[in-house]
Amino acid sequence: MPAHDDPLAGALAAIVGAPHVLTDPEVKATYEVDWTSRYRGESRLVVRPAGTAEVAAVVRECAAAGVPIVAQGGNTGFVGGGVPRGGEVVLSLARMDDVEPPDQAAAQIAAGAGATLAAVQDAARRAGHFFSIDLGARDSATIGGLLATNAGGTRAFRYGMARAHVVGIEAVLANGAVVSRMAGLPKDNTGYDLAQLLVGSEGTLGVITRARLALTSRGGSVATALVGIESTAEAVELFARLRRDLPGLDAAELFYANGLELVRAHAGLPAPLARAFPAYLLLECSAVAGAQDDLVAALGADADAVLADDSTTRQRLWRYRESHTEAVSARWIPLKLDVALPLSRLAAFVDELTAFARAELPAAQVFVYGHAGDGNLHVQLVGLDAAAERDAMAAVLALVARNGGSIGAEHGVGVAKRDWLHLTRAPGDVAAMQAVKRALDPEGVLNPGVLFPDGT
Amino acid sequence: MPAHDDPLAGALAAIVGAPHVLTDPEVKATYEVDWTSRYRGESRLVVRPAGTAEVAAVVRECAAAGVPIVAQGGNTGFVGGGVPRGGEVVLSLARMDDVEPPDQAAAQIAAGAGATLAAVQDAARRAGHFFSIDLGARDSATIGGLLATNAGGTRAFRYGMARAHVVGIEAVLANGAVVSRMAGLPKDNTGYDLAQLLVGSEGTLGVITRARLALTSRGGSVATALVGIESTAEAVELFARLRRDLPGLDAAELFYANGLELVRAHAGLPAPLARAFPAYLLLECSAVAGAQDDLVAALGADADAVLADDSTTRQRLWRYRESHTEAVSARWIPLKLDVALPLSRLAAFVDELTAFARAELPAAQVFVYGHAGDGNLHVQLVGLDAAAERDAMAAVLALVARNGGSIGAEHGVGVAKRDWLHLTRAPGDVAAMQAVKRALDPEGVLNPGVLFPDGT
Repeated sequence: MPAHDDPLAGALAAIVGAPHVLTDPEVKATYEVDWTSRYRGESRLVVRPAGTAEVAAVVRECAAAGVPIVAQGGNTGFVGGGVPRGGEVVLSLARMDDVEPPDQAAAQIAAGAGATLAAVQDAARRAGHFFSIDLGARDSATIGGLLATNAGGTRAFRYGMARAHVVGIEAVLANGAVVSRMAGLPKDNTGYDLAQLLVGSEGTLGVITRARLALTSRGGSVATALVGIESTAEAVELFARLRRDLPGLDAAELFYANGLELVRAHAGLPAPLARAFPAYLLLECSAVAGAQDDLVAALGADADAVLADDSTTRQRLWRYRESHTEAVSARWIPLKLDVALPLSRLAAFVDELTAFARAELPAAQVFVYGHAGDGNLHVQLVGLDAAAERDAMAAVLALVARNGGSIGAEHGVGVAKRDWLHLTRAPGDVAAMQAVKRALDPEGVLNPGVLFPDGT
Repeated sequence: MPAHDDPLAGALAAIVGAPHVLTDPEVKATYEVDWTSRYRGESRLVVRPAGTAEVAAVVRECAAAGVPIVAQGGNTGFVGGGVPRGGEVVLSLARMDDVEPPDQAAAQIAAGAGATLAAVQDAARRAGHFFSIDLGARDSATIGGLLATNAGGTRAFRYGMARAHVVGIEAVLANGAVVSRMAGLPKDNTGYDLAQLLVGSEGTLGVITRARLALTSRGGSVATALVGIESTAEAVELFARLRRDLPGLDAAELFYANGLELVRAHAGLPAPLARAFPAYLLLECSAVAGAQDDLVAALGADADAVLADDSTTRQRLWRYRESHTEAVSARWIPLKLDVALPLSRLAAFVDELTAFARAELPAAQVFVYGHAGDGNLHVQLVGLDAAAERDAMAAVLALVARNGGSIGAEHGVGVAKRDWLHLTRAPGDVAAMQAVKRALDPEGVLNPGVLFPDGT
């Protein structure tokens, strides 16, 4: 219906301007489906505020009308947490994309929730700093989404998840109150850290509108190696040794022979090493100078490795790892599971998963890859129908839980995993989470249906 | 009164054993005063449980009896958050001091809340790792206290505050529920991070009983320099340059001429440099090899600096900084304020503080020192009577707030600063904190009187 037929659309247009309230079904449509095409729902309307004060006014207006809100950033999530289930207002932060020049003394950068990860990385780099969050969706994923989901990525084992980068946050709570702590104080112990509570809460406790983020210094010398290895266990051992002996190690990515073959076919890439291996570790380290010498010394002379210390070769090596998602998605709509295991259980889990798939899912292919440094694996299953997918998902998540792992590593719970929350969070734990939710959003305005099992 | 006269003492003795319920006034006394001698109150009794299950039973028993609980670790806090105000049960975590051997693959270490920082540092070091939290009270401060107060210290600007080290936590909530996430998963996005909410909550939301902490790798080569500088502004500029060019920089401590003179007189130390300077920066950096070369190159040939690359000289340089607290406390009972400023305002704040003290507090001496890297200053005022102290505290905290700083940097709010919470937290912010407090501790069992202004 046209905007003027919906009184809420009219009220929101008075806040953000009529061009930024979208009610046309065709225009709304791109906001109503996630990029995996698995999650979709019709929105009441889409509203695109220009700043924190407008977000606060929008939240108050929606709360008064009893209409729930789904905040949306770059829409690159995997778990359906950023698209409507049906009837919600989609609050897009896309217009709030400014990036401030870095604060040189404090090594910090402030940006709006709608700024892309790549824009923040670039601004940091131009100022001689390094923003250490990195992941494949860097050109689309936004700061607000990265924080709302506590994104991880390839550097997290060394520099921490998104939450470790937060030195200030601005957010709108469900009652329209603005929480703003943007002075950039790395040390600030004056009560509960609401910023840390909001990070990873998947839009259910507040709408993050702006953040101030810590930058780091990486050193100008970077070296990369792709190492052929015989087993997951060998990967874990090698990583444990390198992280201790090589403080500059800042990426350790794992993938397997079947994924490599798929990637090579998809992207037309040559074999990376003289012979094929069961598994591969992509390692990267940085230093003020001499990173490649450090890396070679730490690997040892007899390692089966190809090295890169120029950016062209480096990008070529990274393609073997980063093309996995694309290569799988080009052929199938995979069931994507993002899980974490204790490093001491990583090898056992991969073996058990392989045995399970062979015995129980003969029609399926399983691709496993991920961030070995923090035990984070992306498990992609293809070739299953919808019913088989749901059974396989339940079985794999249970296998993760039995190995002491987490069913949501860097992609969260969203809609996708809410029914399995109990696998890794105890009843008292879930009760505490729900008490916090009721305390900060008693009317259930913010992203209902996400995180908690339906009807709880 | 003897234990058997207090029914609560009897009930707690049934949980922890009679020898671990202390009711004798002389025995209780050491638990009832903080080490600054500023905060004290009589406890109902002291209970010393041996594990998480006992803590949970103690909390349930106290809650049922309507008796509030003050959790206590090493009792090294500065803000009165770990001693009773009057009538509480003191729950000492001291017996829960086990330290597990480090997990080599994951670079993590698990310890009970009562383990000292030094014990954890030592266990990490023996396994070839580095536990990066460090502060002067390392031999007494405990893991539980460090996390409950989100401790900072000398390495925080590089490795983060205590919260950044948490990969798992076990805690007891006010209703006796145990929250336990100790698998050691650096990536675990399955709902609200209750661990992060508990960290820094000063014992008001739960009792932390155990933690799993991230270790890091520092490199075996360490270099230290004490640099004479002309002004706070020069210190900020030098630090900004070094943190960008020298990724291995992991300490940057600031102190001034009057503090150095006091320390030298107290500890009988020689002048560190050929001439006196208005201010000093103590810098430390680490690398796989060649840390001293890196540091000298980054400082430049004409820096007024004394260098150390052996541990004896290093410890001598650190004494100039670390003896400040002791040197002041040996002569006075100082008013200690722990504040943080944006680095861009640090120099202006120190100038304004100096001018204020000269004009308004002619009887006082002011010692300023701290962690320059994160804008964290310890301001100690001596020579004031109690009334003048309160006025001076209000004035200095207001000055901090006007400069965009925090009134509680690494020592928290406790009792000491609860009346000034409004200076840096907005009403909507405090309301959200209070909603969380009511949600998780509706009866106000845990550490009442701390954090929030009285009667709120």
